[in-house]
Amino acid sequence: MKTYQQLFEIFSSHINAANYGSNPKELYEPIDYMMQLGGKRLRPILALMACDLFDSNIEKALHAAHAIEVFHNFTLVHDDIMDNAPLRRGKETVYKKWNMPIAILSGDLMMIKATELLCETETANLKSLLQIFNKTAIEVCEGQQIDMNFETQKSVSHDEYLEMIKLKTAVLLGCSLQIGALIGGASNDDAQHLYEFGKNIGIAFQIQDDILDTFGDGTITGKQVGGDIIANKKTLLLIELLESVHKDDKKLLDDLMQMTDAENKVQGVINLYDKYMIKQFAESKKQQYLDLAYQHLADVQVDEAKKTILTHTAEELMNRVS
Amino acid sequence: MKTYQQLFEIFSSHINAANYGSNPKELYEPIDYMMQLGGKRLRPILALMACDLFDSNIEKALHAAHAIEVFHNFTLVHDDIMDNAPLRRGKETVYKKWNMPIAILSGDLMMIKATELLCETETANLKSLLQIFNKTAIEVCEGQQIDMNFETQKSVSHDEYLEMIKLKTAVLLGCSLQIGALIGGASNDDAQHLYEFGKNIGIAFQIQDDILDTFGDGTITGKQVGGDIIANKKTLLLIELLESVHKDDKKLLDDLMQMTDAENKVQGVINLYDKYMIKQFAESKKQQYLDLAYQHLADVQVDEAKKTILTHTAEELMNRVS
Repeated sequence: MKTYQQLFEIFSSHINAANYGSNPKELYEPIDYMMQLGGKRLRPILALMACDLFDSNIEKALHAAHAIEVFHNFTLVHDDIMDNAPLRRGKETVYKKWNMPIAILSGDLMMIKATELLCETETANLKSLLQIFNKTAIEVCEGQQIDMNFETQKSVSHDEYLEMIKLKTAVLLGCSLQIGALIGGASNDDAQHLYEFGKNIGIAFQIQDDILDTFGDGTITGKQVGGDIIANKKTLLLIELLESVHKDDKKLLDDLMQMTDAENKVQGVINLYDKYMIKQFAESKKQQYLDLAYQHLADVQVDEAKKTILTHTAEELMNRVS
Repeated sequence: MKTYQQLFEIFSSHINAANYGSNPKELYEPIDYMMQLGGKRLRPILALMACDLFDSNIEKALHAAHAIEVFHNFTLVHDDIMDNAPLRRGKETVYKKWNMPIAILSGDLMMIKATELLCETETANLKSLLQIFNKTAIEVCEGQQIDMNFETQKSVSHDEYLEMIKLKTAVLLGCSLQIGALIGGASNDDAQHLYEFGKNIGIAFQIQDDILDTFGDGTITGKQVGGDIIANKKTLLLIELLESVHKDDKKLLDDLMQMTDAENKVQGVINLYDKYMIKQFAESKKQQYLDLAYQHLADVQVDEAKKTILTHTAEELMNRVS
């Protein structure tokens, strides 16, 4: 089994050699720009790892891994327009660096290129791969819309929130593993267990993200602690607090949500989180999804030793502090 | 061979029964809205006609025809954002009726649905169909970007203009015929000739569109005569005039292009078009592409009688006055 670092290097060489096109340059320069912004390449690496579980010839999963990374970057380009986001990985977003029409159109092109790359896979079951990929791509769009709806929606339930993070981010992790596994020759059952492993890790990871925003160490994460609180963002923490809060504390919470003094607002909400044991609640939810993920991994019919790389990657993700 | 009207009815029943999804409604309502705006359904009908040339069981091309129509509507939804267009077929555009994020995201979803529909085709050569479709989809994006570039580009040559209309609109007509033909069991050669037929008809049609905007009968077309002239739009007519105009008339043309009095502007430019025989030039270009189209149709190895429906459809398109 290859390590994350080895797979990262193989994948990096592969995409560094990619030629998406050149004319008109307004359309292709943003694609090169996005694909070179870097990142940990989690999704394509998961696809390669899953292939490696069943067939050490991981080269055959490279086109699919590439397709998934291009698709992921397409969603970032379009999401940045919708969120009016100025920065992505510390650099200007496509929408800011060029303009909105170019961000729409180069994003569209990336979506099409993703399908084109997936179609380059040498496989007898291209149709299955495409069906999994299209289903996931549709869910990612649905997740983004549900997330946007939350901004104006008066109340959001746990279930709605968990469904949103599942669609918006977790299913693509599952899809990456499932497609990689199928290319490696996995049975449908094994590929499905890997999908569930990735999906549940993804949900746990998003919950972790919510916890870290409020309870992380700002000096390590490099982010403003309590950013979500300041923005009244409907995270799992706030949703649980809104559902649990006693009548006596309701007015206090309402006042805190209107407060403009950021420092006192963050401290006030954290006091309520502590009082209602919200962090513990979120940690236990996270653990439920992790447990579920590992149950599915246990059901995959390959040597336990081979699974270490996946367990290790999941642990690294969950132990990250930034 | 089925008539346009028969195919239109079969296709209409098919898409009226379509269920694209429902949740979240913000994402699916715009898709239903767009797909129900109607239109002549030219591209899917061409796909069905091409299938019918080789196999009267046109049902098997319905998913692909549907995919092409959904793809075409995806491009309209995104183009309308980029062009800031308020109306589409007399109704509000998705971007105006909902908002920009919803138009981006529901368009994205339509693009994915198009691929999903194409994958439903029962065929042994799905990979070929997808390759043709993806190649065309990429070209359509390129054409839209080149068209946007023209707005700020100082000078545009004939060749650049013809390349733009080929990419932006003509290749999708060719692709529709090629995919329909392949599903019907055509040889690659026959499918390629039909692609060239559709592409060249598409280019001729766009040139016709430019001619009609200036020389059409406004009472019949229902459009303001000379709209392109008023907007200084770089049509084949204006491009040719800019290239042919003598030094003596250059100043007059420059003045006309700055003029705010629409009526005198249109008449002044038309006078120059007449002086330099620009309409005749455009008509002859159009005829070149039509001739090329019919040469390719002649090379398709099916009974001549069967081709009548395609010739008739092309003539109807070219004789339209609106």
